[in-house]
Amino acid sequence: MHILVLGAAGMVGRKLVERLVRDGRLGNSEISRLTLQDVVAPTKPEKAGYPVDVVAGDFAVPGFAEKLVAGRPDVIFHLAAIVSGEAELDFDKGYRINLDGTRMLFDAVRLVGDGYKPRLVFTSSIAVFGAPFPDAIGDEFFHTPLLSYGTQKAIGELLLADYTRRGFFEGVGIRLPTICIRPGLPNKAASGFFSNILREPLAGKEAVLPVSEDVRHWHATPRSAVGFLLHAATMDTAKIGPRRNLTMPGLSATVGEQIAALKRVAGETVAARIKRVPDPFIIGIVDGWPRNFEAKRARELGFTTEEHSFDDIIRIHIEDELGGNFVA
Amino acid sequence: MHILVLGAAGMVGRKLVERLVRDGRLGNSEISRLTLQDVVAPTKPEKAGYPVDVVAGDFAVPGFAEKLVAGRPDVIFHLAAIVSGEAELDFDKGYRINLDGTRMLFDAVRLVGDGYKPRLVFTSSIAVFGAPFPDAIGDEFFHTPLLSYGTQKAIGELLLADYTRRGFFEGVGIRLPTICIRPGLPNKAASGFFSNILREPLAGKEAVLPVSEDVRHWHATPRSAVGFLLHAATMDTAKIGPRRNLTMPGLSATVGEQIAALKRVAGETVAARIKRVPDPFIIGIVDGWPRNFEAKRARELGFTTEEHSFDDIIRIHIEDELGGNFVA
Repeated sequence: MHILVLGAAGMVGRKLVERLVRDGRLGNSEISRLTLQDVVAPTKPEKAGYPVDVVAGDFAVPGFAEKLVAGRPDVIFHLAAIVSGEAELDFDKGYRINLDGTRMLFDAVRLVGDGYKPRLVFTSSIAVFGAPFPDAIGDEFFHTPLLSYGTQKAIGELLLADYTRRGFFEGVGIRLPTICIRPGLPNKAASGFFSNILREPLAGKEAVLPVSEDVRHWHATPRSAVGFLLHAATMDTAKIGPRRNLTMPGLSATVGEQIAALKRVAGETVAARIKRVPDPFIIGIVDGWPRNFEAKRARELGFTTEEHSFDDIIRIHIEDELGGNFVA
Repeated sequence: MHILVLGAAGMVGRKLVERLVRDGRLGNSEISRLTLQDVVAPTKPEKAGYPVDVVAGDFAVPGFAEKLVAGRPDVIFHLAAIVSGEAELDFDKGYRINLDGTRMLFDAVRLVGDGYKPRLVFTSSIAVFGAPFPDAIGDEFFHTPLLSYGTQKAIGELLLADYTRRGFFEGVGIRLPTICIRPGLPNKAASGFFSNILREPLAGKEAVLPVSEDVRHWHATPRSAVGFLLHAATMDTAKIGPRRNLTMPGLSATVGEQIAALKRVAGETVAARIKRVPDPFIIGIVDGWPRNFEAKRARELGFTTEEHSFDDIIRIHIEDELGGNFVA
């Protein structure tokens, strides 16, 4: 089985590739080849035991996607995107990458022809939803994004469903919760602080909280995100029907609940490293974001999370990223 | 006031232009100039009393939209589209006109700059919804189109809302019911038979009914459609908020109820001109179409229909299109 990952140098992309290399298989199929794309060269995994092609380049440049799919990958993970904050600040760049790039990829697959019909897993986002919301957003709630990023993801979902209906590929779109705790350095996502306020204190550093503690949001660990991707790539799509885009399960928690969990798992000293510095730009963006979901359909279709409480989310980070230790 | 109409040679476009010329004004503003575009030259209205520019050309050709908006129209009606049946049969053409063309228009407006911010009224469609449905579709029901046409319209709605939020124009998207009775010759819309089975018998001709009589659908007269467009162009948009796309009011009726109304208004002989010839292609398309809506928000925002029963729909056609007479 040949697998292509777009956005393989991103956080979720790297975790996915690590897992694929570790497993050596996807579902019942042995992996025989990996193609890893990102705008900067993704790290080539060692000891894969099969060919791994690393491609550095902008997938939204005309002709690029055609080359990526020329090797007829059986499964395509499309994780490449300009994140919310950056797409809001740079209108043209956001639309070029998130809309045009996605469409170019879909069209490249379509135009291979000759019976080629890969599984295509697309990471959408809960940013397709915009306030005001019901207490818990159901699976049939409409899309009224309040950011260009959410607009672009919603358009990607529509294209994915139509191209699947037309028989060009077997698409599954998954709306990831905000990933928490996001490892590594902060990126330009407006949601970054949800992770910063946990990750940085656990590493002995100060972190800035730009919103109030009653902000409620929807979270899942990187480990769960990878699990969602693998399930989307291997599940029986006959069960999905024409509604190809699914809100993934997650945990709904307030910032205050996040901090309480941090205190329970790591202690008061760690939690005291959080500094409150309100940021009107972030407050304005986050104000329109969803807080809680039913995610009934995804659960029925077999998507599950690894965590059952916010304490679990913090423990999984300490286990997966910090070798079991944190700076007390 | 300068008004631009894209798709001015289409049925709704012609009706809109007739009404604008007849009224001489839009809301409280006197019309000082009209620009009418379509792929074939729209008919130039006589006796307008102000400049009318007629432009024939494909608005999805790069550079074309820039020229259209260079005269900085105050109000833009974007009615241009490839209809449902044709967009389904010609994938590339549908996406090129309905998606790329719409985006080019929106971008052309955006790039005028210099404080230019016209009212932009976009005709979307109830084809953004796909079965299965609740009994009456509410205003917060999600978009799962089952046709490329509906996909393209749903994308147009998302772009309209985002471009409006960004301040590039003042957009209002209106999801028109299926227009009934559609005058003139049949077009390539899969919904054509809803009108054919009334219009042709009233003109003394036979008409083909390709679906069963229990098919339920959502209708409005051409007169109401023009009313919706005028209201969308003149209403106080501060009341709409960020959710810029609205399902218009209409009448829900089965084909059997349509035929019963025809019998009441025009007699059994007229209704006997309907021939039942099932068409699997049309049946397949119509099967996924919506049947009934709440349209609560649009009504609250002042959108109203001229008709209150299907008998009214037939009478309005006889009045507006047949000079008060039909072939008994």
